[in-house]
Amino acid sequence: MNYDVIVVGGGHAGIEAALACARMGSKTLLISMLAENVGATSCNPAIGGLAKGHLVREIDALGGEMALITDEAGIQFRILNQTKGPAVRGSRAQIDMDRYRVIARNKILTTSNLDLVQEMAEELIVENETVCGVKTNLLNEYTAKKVIVTSGTFLRGIIHVGEIKQEGGRFGEQSSVSLSHSLKACGLEMGRLKTGTCARVDASSIDFSVMEKQDGDENPSPFSFRTNRDEFRKTKKQIPCYIAYTNEDTHNIIESNFYRAPLFTGQIEGTGPRYCPSIEDKINRFRDKERHHLFIEPQTMENTECYINGMSTSLPPEVQQQMIHSVHGMENAKIVRYGYAIEYDFVDPRELKHSLETKKIKGLYLAGQINGTTGYEEAAAQGLMAGINATLSLQDKEPLILRRDEAYIGVLIDDLVTKGTKEPYRMFTSRAEYRLLLREESADTRLSRYGHALGLIDDKIYARVKVKEEQIQEGLRLLNETVFTPNKEFIKFLESMGEEKIKDSITAQQLVARKSFDVAKMVKIVPELDKYDPYIKEEIFVEGKYSRYVEKQSQEIEKMKKYLKVEIPQDFDFKSISGLSREIVEKLESFNPPTLQAASQISGITPAAIEILHIFIKIEQKKINYKEIL
Amino acid sequence: MNYDVIVVGGGHAGIEAALACARMGSKTLLISMLAENVGATSCNPAIGGLAKGHLVREIDALGGEMALITDEAGIQFRILNQTKGPAVRGSRAQIDMDRYRVIARNKILTTSNLDLVQEMAEELIVENETVCGVKTNLLNEYTAKKVIVTSGTFLRGIIHVGEIKQEGGRFGEQSSVSLSHSLKACGLEMGRLKTGTCARVDASSIDFSVMEKQDGDENPSPFSFRTNRDEFRKTKKQIPCYIAYTNEDTHNIIESNFYRAPLFTGQIEGTGPRYCPSIEDKINRFRDKERHHLFIEPQTMENTECYINGMSTSLPPEVQQQMIHSVHGMENAKIVRYGYAIEYDFVDPRELKHSLETKKIKGLYLAGQINGTTGYEEAAAQGLMAGINATLSLQDKEPLILRRDEAYIGVLIDDLVTKGTKEPYRMFTSRAEYRLLLREESADTRLSRYGHALGLIDDKIYARVKVKEEQIQEGLRLLNETVFTPNKEFIKFLESMGEEKIKDSITAQQLVARKSFDVAKMVKIVPELDKYDPYIKEEIFVEGKYSRYVEKQSQEIEKMKKYLKVEIPQDFDFKSISGLSREIVEKLESFNPPTLQAASQISGITPAAIEILHIFIKIEQKKINYKEIL
Repeated sequence: MNYDVIVVGGGHAGIEAALACARMGSKTLLISMLAENVGATSCNPAIGGLAKGHLVREIDALGGEMALITDEAGIQFRILNQTKGPAVRGSRAQIDMDRYRVIARNKILTTSNLDLVQEMAEELIVENETVCGVKTNLLNEYTAKKVIVTSGTFLRGIIHVGEIKQEGGRFGEQSSVSLSHSLKACGLEMGRLKTGTCARVDASSIDFSVMEKQDGDENPSPFSFRTNRDEFRKTKKQIPCYIAYTNEDTHNIIESNFYRAPLFTGQIEGTGPRYCPSIEDKINRFRDKERHHLFIEPQTMENTECYINGMSTSLPPEVQQQMIHSVHGMENAKIVRYGYAIEYDFVDPRELKHSLETKKIKGLYLAGQINGTTGYEEAAAQGLMAGINATLSLQDKEPLILRRDEAYIGVLIDDLVTKGTKEPYRMFTSRAEYRLLLREESADTRLSRYGHALGLIDDKIYARVKVKEEQIQEGLRLLNETVFTPNKEFIKFLESMGEEKIKDSITAQQLVARKSFDVAKMVKIVPELDKYDPYIKEEIFVEGKYSRYVEKQSQEIEKMKKYLKVEIPQDFDFKSISGLSREIVEKLESFNPPTLQAASQISGITPAAIEILHIFIKIEQKKINYKEIL
Repeated sequence: MNYDVIVVGGGHAGIEAALACARMGSKTLLISMLAENVGATSCNPAIGGLAKGHLVREIDALGGEMALITDEAGIQFRILNQTKGPAVRGSRAQIDMDRYRVIARNKILTTSNLDLVQEMAEELIVENETVCGVKTNLLNEYTAKKVIVTSGTFLRGIIHVGEIKQEGGRFGEQSSVSLSHSLKACGLEMGRLKTGTCARVDASSIDFSVMEKQDGDENPSPFSFRTNRDEFRKTKKQIPCYIAYTNEDTHNIIESNFYRAPLFTGQIEGTGPRYCPSIEDKINRFRDKERHHLFIEPQTMENTECYINGMSTSLPPEVQQQMIHSVHGMENAKIVRYGYAIEYDFVDPRELKHSLETKKIKGLYLAGQINGTTGYEEAAAQGLMAGINATLSLQDKEPLILRRDEAYIGVLIDDLVTKGTKEPYRMFTSRAEYRLLLREESADTRLSRYGHALGLIDDKIYARVKVKEEQIQEGLRLLNETVFTPNKEFIKFLESMGEEKIKDSITAQQLVARKSFDVAKMVKIVPELDKYDPYIKEEIFVEGKYSRYVEKQSQEIEKMKKYLKVEIPQDFDFKSISGLSREIVEKLESFNPPTLQAASQISGITPAAIEILHIFIKIEQKKINYKEIL
């Protein structure tokens, strides 16, 4: 059976990859070990969060699926960091994990050009360093020009619970051993990572009355730009989460069982996610912290089973029981599924181009945890980009490489393929240099043009984005062009809003930039803005408020873009540059890049190295003795 | 952790067992390998059918769960054999397999006294031939006085697809090896069976327009006596199935691949279900049949994936493709999940008492496929009875043994434990000697009193059953007491209904017994009956119509009950009886039963043997030379 693209794995990366390929016209096959578990949320029942919410919005703007499924399967929606700056706000949704899977599977099954088969991919067929298909455990041979592997935690997966160690890609499911060997045989540098998950508890055994209730937002916002906001607010049913805390007892129980923790005994060899640590790791690293937050999250709308977020662990079952029972409100909690750690193979992402194609094997793309990331959103983002780029390549088109200044997805992939990772990589807003440009709410105006050009965003939706963009520009123009003079009437008006008076003429935008200004005040001083939808008003307000910073960031980017065009002299002596590591010098010497742009794309060449390189080229061009200027 | 009862396995048997125990007050633990798959429908997405529908109604009348879940998850309801006699009608429902699982799991999680854990049971803890707990793969030891094993196809499960053979209890899931060894170590006689399932096809790849549509009943009846019938009819949404056919091409493809069929090559050792054969088996056995029915059944309400009922197979993937493509309407069908066969260990059910407790290990009960049956309904029925009897035993009460004349469940268990089985056993109406007494619609009046006494049917429901029973009795009394004389007026009235005249006085019931009589006519001649609910009228009509046969069957049963009391003389010479097999004679000699009743309970002693024994005892008592009378 012949396809254009084969996607191996039906997790969050695989879903986006398969849908993108099929929608862009590639005849696509998705191979999943268990059709039932396409779209399974193996860890917590939530999508989004800080920085992760950004990824979901970007996936959506590009025409991916995650936000749409989340809006449908969501049972609680919150915007985190509401009180902080708009750039670091993050949308997060609790989802009904049963519904999520059903919606994802149905989406796969009803998309044209896309077939789903329940088999285990066992071997990549590779000829002349070019992938040409996949062999499965049912001895089927599927051929394709492109193969996207999204194997999650399944490659030689080993599950740890206390002293117990057993094969499995997820609890109760088989591990994928042959495929790992096949990737290794391709010459790819591989390593071992570890991740973990929390126990799930019977909801009826929890005393929620002693816990802090955490409701969803009163006026919840959908994740997808394509979801009808009003309809969503009218119909969406939400249920609460609860907050509990560990205490001294909990910590004592955990500490006194360190000697049984696979993480500490050497039983686990892979490196775990630093920013999503297990509870034993937290207790070990933050010994003087008196308590840790636990979020008790419903796994489904019926809330019969809860995920104990914050307590990822691979301690033995009886220790898990003790530590959960030590938490106020969970004295009688009944564990349905024990937490566990899982070790799995990943491929060093420096084996990849920015397109997510491997450098060694043509047509082979990798996405998701196999590239060393953690998180559904990080996986989905890569899956989408791998799908897009596999199909673009089939169409003899240039890959879509998102820049660091236009998308978190750009940051994510650039970080991975240039720096590699030694531990499961998760997204943070702090990883983005230009985060004021990369707000969640601007994802559509930033990226929909790509989605539209690729055929993943339809004309109607795109027209709506254009209108939004125009309205915001119009609003910003109004803010800029409306000038107030310090006449008595206006000062009185300002005072009536509790605002300080002005001394000189001032634009509306300058007023909006005041910390004390909110949307209501903005509309009071520029009533023409009132015609816009509240959502657009908010956007005009935010963009107006931060326009100075945004401009500054934009200038920096422009500068960077310009200097990336700088040519590197043919005989440039890289060794002469102090401040570059030996590894970087060696790489520059071997690749001999013609421009800084080309240099920046070499794996392992950091932005800092480019900056230094830039300075030294300028110095050389101007024949300045660099010692004089430094 | 200490429980009263541990149930191993969360399939249809395990669900009923666990719920029954918990509801009867036993502290119960359900151990399932994959919490997600509690209530999974591993084979076709349907509940009920001929004789199986009876089992579901009986489970319901006793207070089990299957009918309630089916009513909620059902997406099509039909009564089969509508045109045939009321005793052999069978209710059948297509169910949404996603919903079924979710409802089942939530039911388990929200039932008091019942815990669910996701672990693999690996070993039975047995002391002094008494079970006292279970060890799991997470090294947890759970203690309990009773253990009910419902392992389905998981015991040393091996999956076959063409030449491929791999371990697994269900496709993609792990096989349970240790537990099988543990049962063997208990000294239980074990064997190997085989079952199989059909391919699932992407619904969007099927051309339904060339197939015969099969809608649900216009006025669907719920399965459960406890579901509100009117509400159900008003709100239940149904979707159609489709009928397709195999043809000469299909048969040729299959036949020319017999040499690759694991069923014929010797690769499969276990015996398959005779009455639910694979397509290769059907083609082999019925060579001159020109076509076989295929039922294309939606797996969920969204109908994205279809089950190809009638095409169970373990032929290689490419043969499965060819044979499916040969069917009109499936020329372009895309297989999502391939059909496969599965071999698994079962325990000879003659190891069991009628209570489903093993004879060798006290407190150990077995239910479902482990006892050699096939079918969700057969499994659920056993699960329920095992659960009830485990708890009754904990309460020092006699087990509930349903007789063959009061329930299909009685027939099922009696068949299993007395005769054993060499192939997966499924229920048929023909297995019940007294099937006129065992109609689906009478299940509640037959069995609710047990359910109520056990605490599984609440007072309100039971009161409703009592009312139903009284109304039917009242109606039957009316039919019996209303006498018509052959006067002109009445004869004219009869003729106006197209009925033949009467010559002598006749009761209404005698008239109703006429083949030409229907409910409407019954109400015309006895207008007092019109006050009843249509459903009750139907019941009065059916019971009235068949009362002669019912009486005859009841008499036979009474006779049988009487002669089972017959004592067997102390020095009775079993060897002198011609017509008894050597095995039976040996058993009778070794057990030396005091009565025919006791003899009938010996494993392997058939009803026919009892009949012969009865005759010979009578002969001996009367000192007759038996050669003279035979």
